[in-house]
Amino acid sequence: MAVYTTVEDDEVGELAKSYDLGEIVAFKGIAEGVENSNFLLQTDTASYILTLYERRVQASDLPFFLELMIHLADNGIDCPVPLANKDGDTATVVAGKPAAIVSFLPGISIHRPHNEHCIQLGTALASLHLAGQSFNRSRPNDQSIASWRSLISASSDRANEIQKGLDADLEEELEYLEVNWPEGLPTGIIHGDLFPDNVFFVGGKLSGLIDFYFACTDFLAFDIAICLNAWCFEFDGSFNVTKARGLLAAYQAVRPLEQAELDSLQTLCRAASIRFLSTRLYDWLNQFDGALVKPKDPMEYIKILRFHQGVSGVSAYGL
Amino acid sequence: MAVYTTVEDDEVGELAKSYDLGEIVAFKGIAEGVENSNFLLQTDTASYILTLYERRVQASDLPFFLELMIHLADNGIDCPVPLANKDGDTATVVAGKPAAIVSFLPGISIHRPHNEHCIQLGTALASLHLAGQSFNRSRPNDQSIASWRSLISASSDRANEIQKGLDADLEEELEYLEVNWPEGLPTGIIHGDLFPDNVFFVGGKLSGLIDFYFACTDFLAFDIAICLNAWCFEFDGSFNVTKARGLLAAYQAVRPLEQAELDSLQTLCRAASIRFLSTRLYDWLNQFDGALVKPKDPMEYIKILRFHQGVSGVSAYGL
Repeated sequence: MAVYTTVEDDEVGELAKSYDLGEIVAFKGIAEGVENSNFLLQTDTASYILTLYERRVQASDLPFFLELMIHLADNGIDCPVPLANKDGDTATVVAGKPAAIVSFLPGISIHRPHNEHCIQLGTALASLHLAGQSFNRSRPNDQSIASWRSLISASSDRANEIQKGLDADLEEELEYLEVNWPEGLPTGIIHGDLFPDNVFFVGGKLSGLIDFYFACTDFLAFDIAICLNAWCFEFDGSFNVTKARGLLAAYQAVRPLEQAELDSLQTLCRAASIRFLSTRLYDWLNQFDGALVKPKDPMEYIKILRFHQGVSGVSAYGL
Repeated sequence: MAVYTTVEDDEVGELAKSYDLGEIVAFKGIAEGVENSNFLLQTDTASYILTLYERRVQASDLPFFLELMIHLADNGIDCPVPLANKDGDTATVVAGKPAAIVSFLPGISIHRPHNEHCIQLGTALASLHLAGQSFNRSRPNDQSIASWRSLISASSDRANEIQKGLDADLEEELEYLEVNWPEGLPTGIIHGDLFPDNVFFVGGKLSGLIDFYFACTDFLAFDIAICLNAWCFEFDGSFNVTKARGLLAAYQAVRPLEQAELDSLQTLCRAASIRFLSTRLYDWLNQFDGALVKPKDPMEYIKILRFHQGVSGVSAYGL
């Protein structure tokens, strides 16, 4: 749940005027996204989402995110499209916060994806990667290997509270990743956070992707690894290879993977585990009273990491 | 903000089937209401609100609230209308909580009402009272004088933390109200909580009333007193008699007040102050870390009470 900032009705009225939106018939804070405040804004003709960027999103990064969404939508990807105000700007300020209005995307997210959802995700992810190739901006991934060591160092003296020996295990894994980090893989725009929360379906059909605020330039296969982790593990921690095979086959039908990407997939899956384990561990150990969002349990990603550490090559992923 | 319970997508699917709602195109938790969880539920044909009753609303009271909304809507009041499922029931259970689906009411609430909003409120309130006269259920007001003494007693040893001498003042006020409590005034269905939050406007025109979960049977003029307090005081604590005059004149154009109601208005305004001061004081002194909703400052209602204590009769309200 995330509505951190109150927006007064007169501010909504001003906003509607500056965007030429027409009559406002509804304005409601919604529990979508974790780090931003989101509001449903309905006019007599259309529905929109107003997002106020609260903490993590830098105002200087907004043009990248907003132009990316416009580019992707122009290139056939179903995603929210930022709206320009009368001055032609897509970025604005509401209640003192950087803000944007985007089109409302129909659909609901699926908490327990089935095979057919994973297959559709594979197609959508590859289509996103292809559409991103013609985008002429780039943004470094600030949630990659360089950031993990500092996050894990900050947690290391208490990591053993979560699991005995975790401290040393994470240190060893970081060293492994630093030594074995892939080079020369195809790069481009990745979503970076394509969890089931961020994928909408209507009547079982994928209707679009949301929340591009981790999007950046990185190995395309790293995005695949993030999705394998987020979509193909069951709640008991077991890996569902049928889902993985479906996701990867659908992906490859749109963008076949190069041999170097296949060779690196296991390492990237380990890396994608550390990506989310490092932030979850930090947030878990640094909870504060009064937080609106309950931190996610890092144990899930410890199990996922163990799985990837234990497999012997890409065949484990159904290839 | 209030989404206390997570509703899984498969539960939403089941719900849509049991109500014959068609294809779900959106399901989002919304920050509306304080004590219940509310979700926007959109199908390919219409929008609804799903409410899960969390704490204060008793399941045994649900039929009263739901039938009241149907009755009011049938009698020309713009309010959410509960939807019946395939079995003909308007009350259901979702995620283990009592729940109901109601029609989506367009509009946004006005944080700083102007005169014209107060005038429209007066008309709507009187229309609500008239429409309620033919409703054949009743429900005692559990937020009336009998409940205030226990709430204030529970706060009395710390009331002086809020304002010096408040403890004795509140005791004296309770005694005054107990001695001077009106008798024989016109009774009927009152909303009981008709703050600006619960009144929607579209393009400056009142579009409807929401949140009937304090509705009960009581003096109609008590509802007027609640509205005078909630709509006619400025943020600096000053009373705007123009707004009050507008509200009361518009009310009386629909339902003229009896002399006994006019004679009791000042006492009922004091009573309506204590009604909200007692709960706010209790919630303020009993905050807990991790609460999703910040308690409202009791000072606002201390100032409102002082105003009503100081006036000499109904002329102070613009009559």
